[in-house]
Amino acid sequence: MKILTRKDFELQDHSDVLATFRDEFDLPAGQIYLDGNSLGALPKKSKQRAREVVEKQWGEDLIQSWNKHHWVDMPTVLGDKLAGLIGAQEGEVLVCDSTSVNIYKLAAAALKMRAGRKKILSEPGNFPTDLYMLQGLVEFSSPEIELNVVSREDLERQIDEDTAVVVLTHVHYRTSEAFNMVDLTRKAHQYGALIIWDLSHSAGALPVDLTRAKVDMAVGCGYKYLNGGPGAPAFLYVARRHHLDLKTPLSGWFGHVLPFNFEDQYKPAENIKRMLCGTPSVLAGALLEVGIDIMCSVDMNLVRQKSIELTGLFIQLIEQRCRDFEVISPRNTDCRGSHVSIRHEQGYAIIQALIERNITGDFRAPDTLRFGFTPLYTRYVDVWDTVDALVEIMEKDAWNCEKFKKESTVT
Amino acid sequence: MKILTRKDFELQDHSDVLATFRDEFDLPAGQIYLDGNSLGALPKKSKQRAREVVEKQWGEDLIQSWNKHHWVDMPTVLGDKLAGLIGAQEGEVLVCDSTSVNIYKLAAAALKMRAGRKKILSEPGNFPTDLYMLQGLVEFSSPEIELNVVSREDLERQIDEDTAVVVLTHVHYRTSEAFNMVDLTRKAHQYGALIIWDLSHSAGALPVDLTRAKVDMAVGCGYKYLNGGPGAPAFLYVARRHHLDLKTPLSGWFGHVLPFNFEDQYKPAENIKRMLCGTPSVLAGALLEVGIDIMCSVDMNLVRQKSIELTGLFIQLIEQRCRDFEVISPRNTDCRGSHVSIRHEQGYAIIQALIERNITGDFRAPDTLRFGFTPLYTRYVDVWDTVDALVEIMEKDAWNCEKFKKESTVT
Repeated sequence: MKILTRKDFELQDHSDVLATFRDEFDLPAGQIYLDGNSLGALPKKSKQRAREVVEKQWGEDLIQSWNKHHWVDMPTVLGDKLAGLIGAQEGEVLVCDSTSVNIYKLAAAALKMRAGRKKILSEPGNFPTDLYMLQGLVEFSSPEIELNVVSREDLERQIDEDTAVVVLTHVHYRTSEAFNMVDLTRKAHQYGALIIWDLSHSAGALPVDLTRAKVDMAVGCGYKYLNGGPGAPAFLYVARRHHLDLKTPLSGWFGHVLPFNFEDQYKPAENIKRMLCGTPSVLAGALLEVGIDIMCSVDMNLVRQKSIELTGLFIQLIEQRCRDFEVISPRNTDCRGSHVSIRHEQGYAIIQALIERNITGDFRAPDTLRFGFTPLYTRYVDVWDTVDALVEIMEKDAWNCEKFKKESTVT
Repeated sequence: MKILTRKDFELQDHSDVLATFRDEFDLPAGQIYLDGNSLGALPKKSKQRAREVVEKQWGEDLIQSWNKHHWVDMPTVLGDKLAGLIGAQEGEVLVCDSTSVNIYKLAAAALKMRAGRKKILSEPGNFPTDLYMLQGLVEFSSPEIELNVVSREDLERQIDEDTAVVVLTHVHYRTSEAFNMVDLTRKAHQYGALIIWDLSHSAGALPVDLTRAKVDMAVGCGYKYLNGGPGAPAFLYVARRHHLDLKTPLSGWFGHVLPFNFEDQYKPAENIKRMLCGTPSVLAGALLEVGIDIMCSVDMNLVRQKSIELTGLFIQLIEQRCRDFEVISPRNTDCRGSHVSIRHEQGYAIIQALIERNITGDFRAPDTLRFGFTPLYTRYVDVWDTVDALVEIMEKDAWNCEKFKKESTVT
């Protein structure tokens, strides 16, 4: 295998067809930011949009903005834009609430749609809030409902005619390993079960085709690869064939067929909007729209290609130059998301040493260093420079310094 | 009764000790905005805060802002500030989610705490989302749980030993009539029931003392009298005596005792934080903080006094000068909130005619015109000028024009 040099990476940047997208983002000077899988970078246009929504729409048009500036349509307008990114159809996606709340709504609806079946299936190590929400749902459901958390290897075998719904994260937040969405969805359907995919580490990171995979339901995060800002609203997807069977426990006024009739009796909207709940944050939605618009202006296949190269080069360099680390993300590009995780028992200290060198990755206890490669604003040289810094840190044992040995509380 | 003139109102403004607070807000020139009970006005400082959070914190410090700028503490920091406004103690209030979602969490928790009891009690005409959320909760609870919606007159009589929780809105969104919180809470407790008060039209509008009233739980809205911006996060309150008994169905990762340990098993925080769910919108929270800070800098008794005067003068002028309208808000100041509603069968057209004159109130189908009097930025002359405009509209029959006869879709 050819020994790579920084020059090779510079050349890659030179011929990168996505390179100009970096100008769409405001990145701190001199920083290498490899945490867009946790909080995406700030689109430049978001600054203008925030001012417009706060100062003009809220400040000047006040209550009339709900109609004049179409605030009231934001969940569906953004949903329809997002639909194009994840292979959904118009009218199948809503931008609303948090990923956690959306999981609850969809899993509860799925249980109702498969009444009589007792099992919710998920895997250990799934993103915690997914498991926590399901645990809460089970605790507040009838006593026979149970959550089965079974390892990835056993998952397929555990789907049976007693399974109401399978809830999985498409790309694993820690390992970056992607499920085969088509196969697992088919497997669930074979037994009449529904499936909910969490696309938090997929949407905006790799091409997703929910329609082709015949997925029933999905949720996902707005503040990672969609660059919607801290705590941006999340999204949910439900295939149109299920819309009229959907019942949500969180039947708030925005899901009412006529919310401004102020009737006493809840009557669900006759489309995906029945999955809305309370009044959404307009400002948060408006900023997410900027991020979605950018992603929608890119060919996701180009994003995917560059993502595969960035993550692949990172793995290659780590294995060539930094043998202290164990790579826990898949080598097989088909089942790798857009981040790479490596392990080291001094992981936390090493991440701190990187931050001191203006390189941001993140740490997941107890020993995982995680690096997100967001093709719109990550350069090839960023990969080189990060591994170079890791090499230096490991040689200098800087990670061993006492000052790095404090507890992490970072998300 | 003395016949009032505009001069009387000018004099009142001249001696108004709260007059300078108007400078804290950005109000559109030449507008009289009487809809702060639906969407509060923009605090000038919110513009700077939005820029700071978007451009500096998100843009420059990115993921590190969760700790560096204390994003992670926002729900409790804001909650503690808000506690002072509603007579709660430190550690009893959270800013999070929407009012709808918070109602669900608290009502579900209350049902668990009063397991064996079957009834949730509320009143017809309560704010729709409150009823809708309770309907959703009942539909997803065990079959014996029921929602009893009984008229205000019968409410006290209906509380009994089978009542798990009473859910009421303190100040009615339509009529502005306020419940006697102390009496009804005592009545609920007499039968061992819990009570949840919706403070959406109370917090920031009048003094509330949850501790003195021995209230169990409360929720409220951030975008009305707290001036938090469109779709601002809501808040919830739980008296400390109940914290360790609280179980929430929406057990998201932010409510975990150690959210960043990424454990598979949900373990609730040992305080009010267990009622958190998913990742909160940071920007929306930051803007709400500005609104809360302003309210916390005012003596709520002065706010209340001016509110009583503004609403009282409005009612007085309507009755003296505009006999076409029926005032449906209480004359008794003790049980009147900070808005006044009047009825007319052409209400929608009349509201449109006011808007043409740069006066904003709102319309609630089928026939209610609603005017919010927010003492921090409403002037006494605004009351005069609004009634003056109503007189002119009714004299000219402008409200009868065909162009006003379209459907309302405004919140």
